[in-house]
Amino acid sequence: MKKLTDIGELGIIKRFQQRFPVKSPRVVMGIGDDTAILKGEKGGYELFTTDILIEEVHFRRSSTAPYLLGRKSLAVNISDIAAMGGEPQYFLLSLGAPPKTTLDYLDQLMEGMLYEASRWGVSLIGGDTSSSPERLIINIALWGRVKKKEVLTRSGAGVGDSIFVSGKLGSSAMGLKLLQRGYGLQGEELSSPKGKGKPPEEPHIRECLASHLSPEPRVELGKAIASHHVASSMIDISDGLSRDLMNICRESRTGAQLLKNRIPLSEAVLHLAAEQGEDAHQFALHGGEDYELLFTVPSDRLRKMEKLLEKGLPTPVTMIGSITRQEQGLTMVDQEGNCQPLLPGGYEHFVPHKI
Amino acid sequence: MKKLTDIGELGIIKRFQQRFPVKSPRVVMGIGDDTAILKGEKGGYELFTTDILIEEVHFRRSSTAPYLLGRKSLAVNISDIAAMGGEPQYFLLSLGAPPKTTLDYLDQLMEGMLYEASRWGVSLIGGDTSSSPERLIINIALWGRVKKKEVLTRSGAGVGDSIFVSGKLGSSAMGLKLLQRGYGLQGEELSSPKGKGKPPEEPHIRECLASHLSPEPRVELGKAIASHHVASSMIDISDGLSRDLMNICRESRTGAQLLKNRIPLSEAVLHLAAEQGEDAHQFALHGGEDYELLFTVPSDRLRKMEKLLEKGLPTPVTMIGSITRQEQGLTMVDQEGNCQPLLPGGYEHFVPHKI
Repeated sequence: MKKLTDIGELGIIKRFQQRFPVKSPRVVMGIGDDTAILKGEKGGYELFTTDILIEEVHFRRSSTAPYLLGRKSLAVNISDIAAMGGEPQYFLLSLGAPPKTTLDYLDQLMEGMLYEASRWGVSLIGGDTSSSPERLIINIALWGRVKKKEVLTRSGAGVGDSIFVSGKLGSSAMGLKLLQRGYGLQGEELSSPKGKGKPPEEPHIRECLASHLSPEPRVELGKAIASHHVASSMIDISDGLSRDLMNICRESRTGAQLLKNRIPLSEAVLHLAAEQGEDAHQFALHGGEDYELLFTVPSDRLRKMEKLLEKGLPTPVTMIGSITRQEQGLTMVDQEGNCQPLLPGGYEHFVPHKI
Repeated sequence: MKKLTDIGELGIIKRFQQRFPVKSPRVVMGIGDDTAILKGEKGGYELFTTDILIEEVHFRRSSTAPYLLGRKSLAVNISDIAAMGGEPQYFLLSLGAPPKTTLDYLDQLMEGMLYEASRWGVSLIGGDTSSSPERLIINIALWGRVKKKEVLTRSGAGVGDSIFVSGKLGSSAMGLKLLQRGYGLQGEELSSPKGKGKPPEEPHIRECLASHLSPEPRVELGKAIASHHVASSMIDISDGLSRDLMNICRESRTGAQLLKNRIPLSEAVLHLAAEQGEDAHQFALHGGEDYELLFTVPSDRLRKMEKLLEKGLPTPVTMIGSITRQEQGLTMVDQEGNCQPLLPGGYEHFVPHKI
């Protein structure tokens, strides 16, 4: 009998898409993008998104401070709104918690959520609490708004568009690897694997752990890109650069070519990967959870984009490749100029993993 | 160190209420009622609610058909919208599933959701899928709408108001008890505890199981009550008559007196409780998950209510008591005319339970 592992996340989403036709004329975009888009007041659009975090799948209590977990649970949803060029506004929280959870843990979790909520002007308006036998479960449903003329989706990329990405990639994936190796960040305190003393690369380790445990949603950048009408498509990098670029290509019916030496790698990742004899690009390409914005800019808007870059954006961005025809698929040109197919990696929920 | 068990659900909700002040002028009602209420288009209100169902807490896979689980997961959210007099419209689904879950199981779960969605004109517009180590987790965030002048909350009850309840109570709680004793309902098929043969009370058992596994949200009734402006407050019975009446009283700063012999008990519960030597009223008072509507009617609108009753409502309703002053607390008058304090029972998530 076929199992979820046989069709994966994408297969499950497709199944829901096929079985649940949306009939309402208010729905501009249903299942399949970062957020759903509904027609709202005064010609504006309303954005709706949800993310579930499950203990031992998305986080471990032993290595994640509850304050940072609270921040991240809201930040990953806010990032979905940012990816549409929107502004987050209200959220509902479902909390499943083991009855033995301490009030101190709950309070710190709340403080983290509250910090992120205050920062972005988001209000908690309701929710559901339930006991959960062993694992902590946090589900957030968040909605926001965007001007109709500014909304960006995954499906607008065209052949010849330049591909841009914000920030530097790979530190979140490196952070996850460090967690797996026994490092942890509880508030300000860095914990190392037992018996190994203070790590020589402490600032790098700290940076990567923080990047994984407490990602920054790029709301200001998303709004800047949207309001200046420079991009044709946008997504946030939650599943990895390769997989999220594939998502843009699938929805836009295009291919894409990345320039390997243009991909912005964080100093910390370069350093730690070299030390471990690993390829830093693997972390940036397939690691996921960077929550940076990936967007495409048509050639006739490149001039406008350059002007924006001269003025400075809330987060720096880098041109890393271009959109190609669909039949060319995903490719990457390396330092020597060789062009090779790029296989999407990144996280797939329904195959066995360890976090 | 204090734990969640020390403060319970109500304590957790209060903690969030205190820590998360709502600043937006669009929010009419935040944390604390069945749904959040936000100002919407054209003077209408938008309603937002969420419910999480966790395997082994809210259901068991061994005794619940996935089709019925799909229906129930949506129905319990729809019931929250019904309790405000509203109409459900759109939902987001978060699904955490063990990777070994079969496609057949997923399809049946979807069919159940789709049945309930089609029935009430509700569209699925997005969601999140994740692997979950052992337990199936279903979170739904649903929103709907209601006319501003028709919205009903928990807080409008006044001293002297009559208390009404829809349908007949207790069969869901009896159904839960039957599940615990080893009965199950997989689609049309009734399964009995091993080696006990076909039960003599089969129709009663079937009715109670169906009532627990597949509750009916009272959308039509809720709208009828709201649109005729007869009620001062309303709630759906998810936690038990005693606990949900307490919720109305707490929010309205009143007490309440129930008339024991007016509480409508289902035939099936009366029969099965008698057979087991148990008090049928306990199931109706403290059992929960009936998803009937509990509402209050001021004396000057009783005449209007009677007219509505004469015309007939989508679900029959019964007058079961009256609202008293807050200092009188919750009381119940029994068959002999004795008045006793009524202690709220019902389900409390953060104390040990078996389902």
